[in-house]
Amino acid sequence: MCHIGFAIEGRPFVIPTAYGRSGDVLYLHGSPASRMLRNLQHGISVCVTVTLLDGLVMARSAFHHSMNYRSVVLFGQATVVEGEAEKRSALRAFTEHVVPGRWAEVRPPSDAELAGTLVLALPIAEASAKVRTGPPVDDPEDYALPVWAGVVPLAMLPRSPVSDPRLVDNVAVSSSVLRYLNGDRDRPPTERSSNP
Amino acid sequence: MCHIGFAIEGRPFVIPTAYGRSGDVLYLHGSPASRMLRNLQHGISVCVTVTLLDGLVMARSAFHHSMNYRSVVLFGQATVVEGEAEKRSALRAFTEHVVPGRWAEVRPPSDAELAGTLVLALPIAEASAKVRTGPPVDDPEDYALPVWAGVVPLAMLPRSPVSDPRLVDNVAVSSSVLRYLNGDRDRPPTERSSNP
Repeated sequence: MCHIGFAIEGRPFVIPTAYGRSGDVLYLHGSPASRMLRNLQHGISVCVTVTLLDGLVMARSAFHHSMNYRSVVLFGQATVVEGEAEKRSALRAFTEHVVPGRWAEVRPPSDAELAGTLVLALPIAEASAKVRTGPPVDDPEDYALPVWAGVVPLAMLPRSPVSDPRLVDNVAVSSSVLRYLNGDRDRPPTERSSNP
Repeated sequence: MCHIGFAIEGRPFVIPTAYGRSGDVLYLHGSPASRMLRNLQHGISVCVTVTLLDGLVMARSAFHHSMNYRSVVLFGQATVVEGEAEKRSALRAFTEHVVPGRWAEVRPPSDAELAGTLVLALPIAEASAKVRTGPPVDDPEDYALPVWAGVVPLAMLPRSPVSDPRLVDNVAVSSSVLRYLNGDRDRPPTERSSNP
């Protein structure tokens, strides 16, 4: 998930949304009726931020409390993806970005669904990253205080999957979801044979 | 954690940061050298978005994949908190927002730390919320497909705390952190006796 920022007449908007990535291109998508996409498709400046929160940094003083995190901020202008092949490949990138292997398990987009989806491409050209790791940094004299200090690691973790009540009888949780649950989430994306 | 959006000469920025809340006021803080705070303190329009990702919505078709989430988007202008009492109470709100009870365990801010912190207040006046919950919504004909569909719930969870290597001997994990680890995280904030 990313947060997309743009400004209309100087007024900023920050909208959470899913994204896909293929090589050095970030893809956004949604309904052509989406106000955000309607604005972005005209090439206004956009900022996309992805943040992973890794832990709470508990210091001995209130002042030095902090967070461990990784964030990347990307700037640019988006363009509309017009070609059907690139559009289809962008939609594949969305699905595979979240749960690798899922694309091959599900019904691929129909021509009507493809036509009814607005896909925007943002080249990954100008970006900056920030990372904080490690224990708190306290004032020298505070290290003698008998106050617990350290890091509480945080992670976004899946719980047991909840089957759709309308699931066809005897359909088991699929292999892409099982792999995801088993912790194959941070694996770099790899090419797989799948629906074109 | 929230994402703060603002625009400088039409160029949008989205920055992740911690926040505190007291009543109908959201507080932001940081070094007076922070570019973001330097800009916001002059009353430019700001957008603050908080997003909680609750699950992956796995549909039978690629097109209907989605996410369950709760997000709130807040608009307004920030003002600098000048009064020492409000500033101190805002810093308390930051600490208590993340780990309730922590403020009373740690060394409170010194006058120098207070003077060296820029605190901004943003009234919670204009906001909009979006929520998605529940199973996927597939096309009627897709419900017959033998494809697993449902929700993979996601939650930000703490792991075992990592003590600071420079911790004084025999200092145990403090009660605020133990309560946090035991799942008292979503509890509404309550008043406690604590350092003023």
